[in-house]
Amino acid sequence: MSLLDQPHHDGSPLYVDDEAPGLGETVRVRMRSVAGDPIDEVWLRTTYDAEPVYHPTARLERDRVVWWEAGLPVRNPVTHYRFLVVRGEEQEWLTGAGVVSYDVPDAADFRLAAFPQAPDWARDGVVYQVFPDRFARSAAADDRPTPEWAVPAAWEDEVVFEGTDPRTPLQLFGGDLDGIVEHLDHVEATGADILYTTPVFPGESNHRYNATTFTQVDPLLGGNDAYERLSGAVHARGWRILGDLTTNHTGDTHEWFRAAHADPDDPHRSFYSFDADGSYESWMGHHTLPKVNHADRNLRAAMVEGPDSIVGRWLQPPFDVDGWRIDVANMTGRLGAVDVTHEVARAVRRTAEALRADPLVIGEHNHDATGDVDGDGWHGTMNYSGFSWPVWAWVRDPASPARPFGRPVPVPRRTGGEVVDTIRAWHGALGWRAVSSSWNILGSHDSARIRTLVGGDAAVHRVAAGLQFTLPGVPMLFAGDEIGLEGVNGEDARRPMPWDDEDAWDLATLATYGELAALRRGHVALRRGGLRWAHVDDDVIAFVREHPVESVLVVARRTSAPGVEIPGLTLGEHLLGTEPGHPDEVGPRLDVWTLG
Amino acid sequence: MSLLDQPHHDGSPLYVDDEAPGLGETVRVRMRSVAGDPIDEVWLRTTYDAEPVYHPTARLERDRVVWWEAGLPVRNPVTHYRFLVVRGEEQEWLTGAGVVSYDVPDAADFRLAAFPQAPDWARDGVVYQVFPDRFARSAAADDRPTPEWAVPAAWEDEVVFEGTDPRTPLQLFGGDLDGIVEHLDHVEATGADILYTTPVFPGESNHRYNATTFTQVDPLLGGNDAYERLSGAVHARGWRILGDLTTNHTGDTHEWFRAAHADPDDPHRSFYSFDADGSYESWMGHHTLPKVNHADRNLRAAMVEGPDSIVGRWLQPPFDVDGWRIDVANMTGRLGAVDVTHEVARAVRRTAEALRADPLVIGEHNHDATGDVDGDGWHGTMNYSGFSWPVWAWVRDPASPARPFGRPVPVPRRTGGEVVDTIRAWHGALGWRAVSSSWNILGSHDSARIRTLVGGDAAVHRVAAGLQFTLPGVPMLFAGDEIGLEGVNGEDARRPMPWDDEDAWDLATLATYGELAALRRGHVALRRGGLRWAHVDDDVIAFVREHPVESVLVVARRTSAPGVEIPGLTLGEHLLGTEPGHPDEVGPRLDVWTLG
Repeated sequence: MSLLDQPHHDGSPLYVDDEAPGLGETVRVRMRSVAGDPIDEVWLRTTYDAEPVYHPTARLERDRVVWWEAGLPVRNPVTHYRFLVVRGEEQEWLTGAGVVSYDVPDAADFRLAAFPQAPDWARDGVVYQVFPDRFARSAAADDRPTPEWAVPAAWEDEVVFEGTDPRTPLQLFGGDLDGIVEHLDHVEATGADILYTTPVFPGESNHRYNATTFTQVDPLLGGNDAYERLSGAVHARGWRILGDLTTNHTGDTHEWFRAAHADPDDPHRSFYSFDADGSYESWMGHHTLPKVNHADRNLRAAMVEGPDSIVGRWLQPPFDVDGWRIDVANMTGRLGAVDVTHEVARAVRRTAEALRADPLVIGEHNHDATGDVDGDGWHGTMNYSGFSWPVWAWVRDPASPARPFGRPVPVPRRTGGEVVDTIRAWHGALGWRAVSSSWNILGSHDSARIRTLVGGDAAVHRVAAGLQFTLPGVPMLFAGDEIGLEGVNGEDARRPMPWDDEDAWDLATLATYGELAALRRGHVALRRGGLRWAHVDDDVIAFVREHPVESVLVVARRTSAPGVEIPGLTLGEHLLGTEPGHPDEVGPRLDVWTLG
Repeated sequence: MSLLDQPHHDGSPLYVDDEAPGLGETVRVRMRSVAGDPIDEVWLRTTYDAEPVYHPTARLERDRVVWWEAGLPVRNPVTHYRFLVVRGEEQEWLTGAGVVSYDVPDAADFRLAAFPQAPDWARDGVVYQVFPDRFARSAAADDRPTPEWAVPAAWEDEVVFEGTDPRTPLQLFGGDLDGIVEHLDHVEATGADILYTTPVFPGESNHRYNATTFTQVDPLLGGNDAYERLSGAVHARGWRILGDLTTNHTGDTHEWFRAAHADPDDPHRSFYSFDADGSYESWMGHHTLPKVNHADRNLRAAMVEGPDSIVGRWLQPPFDVDGWRIDVANMTGRLGAVDVTHEVARAVRRTAEALRADPLVIGEHNHDATGDVDGDGWHGTMNYSGFSWPVWAWVRDPASPARPFGRPVPVPRRTGGEVVDTIRAWHGALGWRAVSSSWNILGSHDSARIRTLVGGDAAVHRVAAGLQFTLPGVPMLFAGDEIGLEGVNGEDARRPMPWDDEDAWDLATLATYGELAALRRGHVALRRGGLRWAHVDDDVIAFVREHPVESVLVVARRTSAPGVEIPGLTLGEHLLGTEPGHPDEVGPRLDVWTLG
């Protein structure tokens, strides 16, 4: 049976009438199969207070597609369901991870969440990530004195990136917020419309994840006034801006920590987890990053709960962020036997929704965010597991010097089949809504650059970018990816944008990003459509994105392997083809067509 | 690569040095592979407050087995881990669901729980389930008047079992507790040593799951004194006894409910979930079974919390139960947006542990108990999903009149491969400790009889029984299975034990149960050993149970298909072979050997 002939369902509008129903409502959901598939019955199984209940489906055949439809009562805040497909003595389950001919646990069940989903702008947009110290310097930067802790660097200097080198976190290039304002036209050229900056709080490092306060913008970046100018300039273009908050820890120079550390009776003492001997919990054992204690009501009030909390304050004028990217969201509120992470996520979301009409909260999770997303907490995650790793494993050059990110071994080289199996598994675990609101990332300030991972091959890089814009999820570009910057690890990836060195720019790839963003903006199927796999082999991955309005076919080849035949599809307009390495080769490239 | 050559780990003593460590301890864990497998590195990955951390392993080769060992810090109450196997550019994960060559979410990770596990007697024993109305009548039963609600039946009468027939729950055969006492020698013949009776509280039905009180034993069963005699007789044999409590609901004739229903101001009103209009929540919409409200502190105190609660009272003299089987544990404490099921499970366990040295709490879950077991709540579940369904699907006669249990379609007929895939998936999701403390069930008062499911084939029935005693988990026999009673559904399965009709007894199968129980008792590998699959095809399933003390091989054939060769194993003593249908055939049968 070809992939396209398999029974299918996902959380998109073709299959689900309401993606964010109210508790107590009944939502029509449907499974598709092909005419000629000898299916006798299809049952919709849901769990109602954890008890399985089966609903019969109604069969409707139309244009060689058979639809099996039933009403799904939304009885629990997150309602699970799956389909039971009966052919004679054979029974198959269809879950979010695909079709299986044996009984599987609920972990990959489809689900409907009775909570609002991520706002439209966040689902339809493209995110551009800026690491402020390395993006751009305004003229004012020249007048700022270098702080004592810093190792000053000229914009053209090489980045110090070895973890063993003490200069790595201290090397200061001096990018600032007005520098970003001056280059928003460049951001526009990539097609992005959501600006996400890593932290802007003062911290005694170039990355600023070790904040000394959460109430001020670092004067080295231009201070509060500069943030107000940046936020204003972003909003003036009709774009959005996101902050970055470390809810898991502060710097050991933070005003809260200094007070807590100096005096056991200080009211901030309970903000952290001190032992009787004065030692304290910190992020992964780094004593400069003391972990905050979300089991403490006062800490929660100060940091995440209500309009006067840190989370709340920045969502209001003059900073006016449209949402937060939450750093180390996976560990936030978790420590040994304590696990209040869901309460913290809910508090952040509640605070945001009370202050803005359509805020976004994205939790960083470089691992398994299942259960932390798609409910009343984070709208989505940085989807390293369900997007980055499988794509990396497909496009990686085995000779690349790219270093591991979060694992002790390099990214493996995997076949198209293994890659699709990975994506299926993660889509099942995370759920459709969380996947489509999460960020598709080819690299960030924490990982090697995609250009380095593919061994410098621009054509393969463009194939990966194509997947970033055509698979479900929201593309997030790390500034510099669009011009082909390199870097073997996260620190090396933080190279300054070479504004004055045009030779360093890969303009063809920049153009591809712009085209991909325009294509995504112009085609609802790419933003909101379902996902069906059409063809998978070692070197080719093809899939259909389908929406009631239109459908498109995406074919990605990682090599110059010959083309593939996908029976049963009528191609319409050729919407986009990425530039291959050599004009006379069929690949590596990614193509998109409308379907007739 | 043969199945036995695959990298392997499970939660058994060969692989884990401490199955119930304390929080903060470090446990040695190890993976095995075969010499000649070109593995370069093995990493132990754990998650620490939901952040992945990798530990290198030490390699030790011995007798063609390669062990990869590391210390696993137990940082969280339930600590996840898995192994990363590196061969050149290839990377595989080994999780509780087996080996995969792509990245999968954490749902099937191995785990260590920093809580005491089920007591030894509960892990090493064999459970015998009695439905009191149908097991045996003492002489005293003749003197008891038939209550008004009941439809009296003589012991030889046919059971009324259609759900549409109003007599089904009312037909009263009059079995009683002294009847059980009189037949404990029979229970001993099956090899069982844990007696579990379905409810003994008065209820206006033969099943008594609709209790009118939880403080008294039904006078129709002989009352409190009879229970004391039964408990005493069971304990006198060195056995254990378990009660059955509906924590999810009561009958609408229950004293709490009558008071609550009659008066909105009655203190019991909050024990249930009444709407403003006087309607109330009930089990699956059955108004005779009002659902109790575990969000209410007073209900929780009355039912599950502390020595004076229902849960607590029965664990003490004179009733002295050794633990509870909790009815509808999956729905207990769950209702729409409310989910306090874990708190309830923890409260039951806490209450039990405060009152007895080694109590057992088993939650009924006919579905997916993942997350509700193997922590500080239920020690295990009735493992329909991970044992019954896969075994049923392997041995089912397609022509059997057995009716579905909990599904709208009959049990499918599946291959050995599909069956092992099912078991792998459930073992991964539930975790080793929960699986090995959960009950392996071929049938209960809720399902068709196994003898009926296999189309009356005694040899196939014995193969299924063999799996029940040799796969990880605790065998639970529903009284009558051992002599081949039949029944097309749960109600029909409740046929009275034909004490006076020896022709109705399958004595060969009874002997098999006794032998299987003795084998399990005599071989620690079958009670505590790990599980490795040795051979799987459509009709043959073979596996090894391994323990530091000894290892055994189990080969099950569902047909008379010819034997299989399993390379690399040296057979020792033939410990047991079930009787095939015809003496000159090699199957259906199950064999057990020691391994040299």
